Amino acid sequence: MSNNILKLTKKDMDKLYVIGVDMGGTNTAFGIVDRRGDILFRDAISTAEYTTGKDYVDALGEAINNLIARNNLENQIKGIGMGVPNGNMNDGTIANAANISWAKSPEPVQLTKLLEEKTGFPSKLTNDANAAAMGEMEYGSAKGMKDFIVITLGTGLGGGVVSNGQLIVGREGFAGELGHVTAVRHNGRSCGCGRVGCLETYASATGVARTAREFLELNPQRKSLLSNITTRPINSKDIFEAAVAGDELAIEIFEFTGRILGEAFADFIAFTGPEAIILFGGLARADKFLIEPIKKAIEDNVLNMYKGKVAIILSELNDAEAAILGASALAW
Amino acid sequence: MSNNILKLTKKDMDKLYVIGVDMGGTNTAFGIVDRRGDILFRDAISTAEYTTGKDYVDALGEAINNLIARNNLENQIKGIGMGVPNGNMNDGTIANAANISWAKSPEPVQLTKLLEEKTGFPSKLTNDANAAAMGEMEYGSAKGMKDFIVITLGTGLGGGVVSNGQLIVGREGFAGELGHVTAVRHNGRSCGCGRVGCLETYASATGVARTAREFLELNPQRKSLLSNITTRPINSKDIFEAAVAGDELAIEIFEFTGRILGEAFADFIAFTGPEAIILFGGLARADKFLIEPIKKAIEDNVLNMYKGKVAIILSELNDAEAAILGASALAW
Repeated sequence: MSNNILKLTKKDMDKLYVIGVDMGGTNTAFGIVDRRGDILFRDAISTAEYTTGKDYVDALGEAINNLIARNNLENQIKGIGMGVPNGNMNDGTIANAANISWAKSPEPVQLTKLLEEKTGFPSKLTNDANAAAMGEMEYGSAKGMKDFIVITLGTGLGGGVVSNGQLIVGREGFAGELGHVTAVRHNGRSCGCGRVGCLETYASATGVARTAREFLELNPQRKSLLSNITTRPINSKDIFEAAVAGDELAIEIFEFTGRILGEAFADFIAFTGPEAIILFGGLARADKFLIEPIKKAIEDNVLNMYKGKVAIILSELNDAEAAILGASALAW
Repeated sequence: MSNNILKLTKKDMDKLYVIGVDMGGTNTAFGIVDRRGDILFRDAISTAEYTTGKDYVDALGEAINNLIARNNLENQIKGIGMGVPNGNMNDGTIANAANISWAKSPEPVQLTKLLEEKTGFPSKLTNDANAAAMGEMEYGSAKGMKDFIVITLGTGLGGGVVSNGQLIVGREGFAGELGHVTAVRHNGRSCGCGRVGCLETYASATGVARTAREFLELNPQRKSLLSNITTRPINSKDIFEAAVAGDELAIEIFEFTGRILGEAFADFIAFTGPEAIILFGGLARADKFLIEPIKKAIEDNVLNMYKGKVAIILSELNDAEAAILGASALAW
């Protein structure tokens, strides 16, 4: 599945490269990145289909080794940087990752250690949203900004918070868990983290799918393109496509999601006073269906002093790219 | 009203001093501070009783000039640092300050400029909670910490957030407005900021007084020491004293307040991953009546990875001191 974007020249061959790994709840994308931030080659494996961390890292390490070997870069790789949900930058482990079956337990999986053993390359990690924030700051919409928040809207919801030009990592290395602030205090949806009402149970790819099921169950008579999907679970792509086709229920689902996000963003803005909130990840592609309700909810809920002052923008980088680039920066 | 804590020696006379000003919603305390962080002399004026910002600054400047003159320090003052609710560090103004009648408007009052004109000393300000955080970091419970949050529980609720050793000020200079995150999304209490459900409408000196009124109105038959207070509004000190005397309603008021605070703190912890949250200000003196419910609500609501890891501590500095010291640090 490798995708040779550029042909290697003699000059490229002389250079050093790093591997950037973007580990999502469903898939893990990775690429070979040069000094300028170009992704030369890329590949991906499943994250979800493994039952132990060891199996996952074995498959990942092998896929990385293969990508390197196919492109004859064995002696030119400096190291590996990973963006990992719930990744602990301090010790290179993953634990308590609500959306990944083999990493749900509080017992940490030694990700970077196992990957070093499998590949022979030094490896570092940070959580995926922080990696995305680093990618945005280096190459994306946040270039030149000192105060911003990146929200990754994928299987879950992640946050990367930059204040005064510095990534906020916190004492334990886990700051920015914005998917797990409480959006709905009473009768909230149960979350993979074991709590209820977390923001990501509403505002994420899985969150909008839950909203679709809830809306349809509450009003089974209602006409919607989504009612036709009966043989498999509804996903966020279905809802987006229905919204594009003018489906009212689908549009309402995004309005509901955007309101909850905007209400949370009003609190985030009070907290760190950012210049911008940058939306990133699959669900962010819902674009105006999501952005307009978010902006309205912010204006309805934010402190007066911030009205009209915080930009809500879509990432300029495509999903895999920003996360791979951000992660790769760790390895230089 | 000046309070000569120390007698000046010849050596002291040779030294330079700064003025630290702690502006609260009700009173403004200020003092003459030396290099080591000792407050040598102090005084206070009312904040609330003035109708314009100009009147307030005239009174404050005169009181500062008098304190300096009484102690023969006219030629030894380096400058003035102020901790100001809603203060804008960038331009030295105050605006949109919900709890101060002459500063409620969005039109900024030129505090430092007016104070410089009145006193002749260079003046700077930051918001009061940030000043408290600076004081805690220099002299208090946060000595040596790099990631912590100071919560000031006074007339309102303020936040000072330090991450990786840096105060988070935000793009506009107003970050850490933690009194105005939404604690109660539906049917919340109306706030001086024009919104509803803000944390400080529940968790502040005025917040607990509102809770007392609400609890008594909902159940007028209930026996409580607080029912005896009929000729004036109940205040937070009444509730504390009733709790000390074993009054069940008063204890419930603090439990309610502590639960709402603890729920909010669980979100704050997810956000910046602090080592400690330090409680500061008049209401924090309620101590165990407030701290125990806070700790319980945090344990009930915080992400698993943070359980038992974030210290909730009372400020070691007395209220006026930390804020005056923190503010004074601006003037060196």
